[in-house]
Amino acid sequence: MTVSTGESTFDWIDVRADARAKAGLARRLRPRQADSTDLDLASNDYLGLARDKRVCGAAAAATLRWGAGSTGSRLVTGSTELHAELEYELANFCGSQSALVFSSGYAANLGALTALSGPGTAIVADQHIHASLIDGTRLSKADVVVAGHCDVAQVTHALQTRGKRRALVVTDSVFSVDGDLAPLKELADACREHDAALIVDDAHGLGVVGPGGRGAVADAGLARSADVVTTLTLSKSLGAQGGAVLGPSRVIRHLVDTARTFIFDTGLAPSSAAAALAAIKILREEPDRPAQALNVAHELSNRLAEAGFHTSTPTAAVVSVRAPSPEQAFAWAEACRTNGVVVGCFRPPSVPDQISRLRLTARADLSEADIERAVRVITECAATAGVETRR
Amino acid sequence: MTVSTGESTFDWIDVRADARAKAGLARRLRPRQADSTDLDLASNDYLGLARDKRVCGAAAAATLRWGAGSTGSRLVTGSTELHAELEYELANFCGSQSALVFSSGYAANLGALTALSGPGTAIVADQHIHASLIDGTRLSKADVVVAGHCDVAQVTHALQTRGKRRALVVTDSVFSVDGDLAPLKELADACREHDAALIVDDAHGLGVVGPGGRGAVADAGLARSADVVTTLTLSKSLGAQGGAVLGPSRVIRHLVDTARTFIFDTGLAPSSAAAALAAIKILREEPDRPAQALNVAHELSNRLAEAGFHTSTPTAAVVSVRAPSPEQAFAWAEACRTNGVVVGCFRPPSVPDQISRLRLTARADLSEADIERAVRVITECAATAGVETRR
Repeated sequence: MTVSTGESTFDWIDVRADARAKAGLARRLRPRQADSTDLDLASNDYLGLARDKRVCGAAAAATLRWGAGSTGSRLVTGSTELHAELEYELANFCGSQSALVFSSGYAANLGALTALSGPGTAIVADQHIHASLIDGTRLSKADVVVAGHCDVAQVTHALQTRGKRRALVVTDSVFSVDGDLAPLKELADACREHDAALIVDDAHGLGVVGPGGRGAVADAGLARSADVVTTLTLSKSLGAQGGAVLGPSRVIRHLVDTARTFIFDTGLAPSSAAAALAAIKILREEPDRPAQALNVAHELSNRLAEAGFHTSTPTAAVVSVRAPSPEQAFAWAEACRTNGVVVGCFRPPSVPDQISRLRLTARADLSEADIERAVRVITECAATAGVETRR
Repeated sequence: MTVSTGESTFDWIDVRADARAKAGLARRLRPRQADSTDLDLASNDYLGLARDKRVCGAAAAATLRWGAGSTGSRLVTGSTELHAELEYELANFCGSQSALVFSSGYAANLGALTALSGPGTAIVADQHIHASLIDGTRLSKADVVVAGHCDVAQVTHALQTRGKRRALVVTDSVFSVDGDLAPLKELADACREHDAALIVDDAHGLGVVGPGGRGAVADAGLARSADVVTTLTLSKSLGAQGGAVLGPSRVIRHLVDTARTFIFDTGLAPSSAAAALAAIKILREEPDRPAQALNVAHELSNRLAEAGFHTSTPTAAVVSVRAPSPEQAFAWAEACRTNGVVVGCFRPPSVPDQISRLRLTARADLSEADIERAVRVITECAATAGVETRR
């Protein structure tokens, strides 16, 4: 018998890689430099707080005081007073009863969905929900019905005809690809009428939408509802890392006892908890920042629409610009980057409707000159990439 | 029609909470203080690096230089030169071809398992694998067979009789509850013989097991195998936060293109990447640290066995001490904590065999006096909790 070297075991990966390359879907990591002068229209740092001196100073100080890591599960040694303070402040700021911090928004979504569902549950999910929510439904062991995007009638029908007693309706507040807003009040009404709970991922709403940036759930008056649960990230408008679940205290206690991504994960690093805390403080002190981010988003969208592009109407800090194909989206984004403007490039399978896009994110700290530069470069690079405008 | 307040929607949670309370399984968060003088035998900070000045200094400096958060997905703006350097160093240190950093070990395990499997795959998993690997198998859409703990014959049989062409064998290297070691060489041989890949979670091996702490996979001579993939955490012996996957370059490139927990998650915070980098540097400079952690584990285990307890034989830094019931385990751990010694308390459902335990973790920086104090307090508190010894 010849001894194998195991070289062929992963040969199937090369076949897949070739197929992706041919379809224009290969991805590449491009590490950025600390002193880059590129204009960032791709990050989720909507309020420009990730490099704010107060946020970074608080994070650095927390590392020196508490250590670089939390050293264990939140249930063992991974909970510090910083975590408790952050949970208090998050709940307080957003108007919820309680909060629980996870190591990421992804972990928060997996934890919330699995702990609040199970085989006796029906989940009704918007077809455009974030990947982490989709994975949560896959892990849930629940009956899962996918409803049309923002289609309250379909959600209602699914709730009415469900075969399980318990039910969860799951949606993003601001959808990450186009930046459109879910009909939260209508969904909450449908849930209330049919004894279902509503789970809202407010990752892109926090810091931008609602009074003083308190998020889309607070804006819809649902933050303190007994049957609404909110999930958040600390890594977007708060400029840090981590995630959280907000809701009624009994729900939060239930997650402490049962959410696998909480129990079996290392707690968030103290520096990230401190950074998020500092960011919330800034949001309280500078309540106009969220409106600035929104204004920049409108400026970008309006001027690019005037230039003839198919842009989304921003309800938060996300603006998408459609591209005719994945290859052209990629070429367009590449040309922008070469010209010093970094934009997101969303292609299948990261887009629920298979339409490729440039994804621009507004930041509260972008100047008029930045906006002009962005619109000029994006317009010029469309020609380079062979993207036609509607004029 | 009366308008509901939604108050009853989550009533089922109270029923579950009551049942857990009656079974002695309710959990509680206890935030620790920065200046606590408790003796920590519960964290996973095996080398005592989480509060090392060099590690914390590097993390704080990185925050000030790079910002508090990575601001986006690793594929958009979340990759910095720090991430690239960490990936290079991790692969280099452990002897693997390539590495990819995730925001947590949980995310690394979910990403690796889902991206490397799929409906055409059979997964054969040790029955004691970590929760994150279990969730990975649940998300994988593969045929999943659970093999007996460290049972190579059962794994081999499952590989021989599988109904799918591709196969993955999944195991922890050091199991987190008892600290026992998987038969990695034998599993690798079985995989090689049956054209399967081996995925090893080396979270508790890195920094403790193998030459200079290079992990159990390196120790078994498997780090550069074409058919072996290793997952790691940066939050245990490296004292930081985050996770990683190590393996052949084509596997790592495949994860960049397809691992959902990589693509749809915010990149690791720069401070955590810098902390892990600094910890690897210390491991290179102080190659005896891992042996110190192991020595402390042996001391703890031997002295507690001499005192009449049922202890595990440590192969890494984890020592478990059996308790007769969840209630007694809890009372025992509580009494230790009251007396200034923090130990882990593992109860169902966190233990795969339903046996409750104290879980002690050795640290390289524990002194002889610390060990004496630990053994004395644990022994005295056993009596308080009604735990009988074998003498």
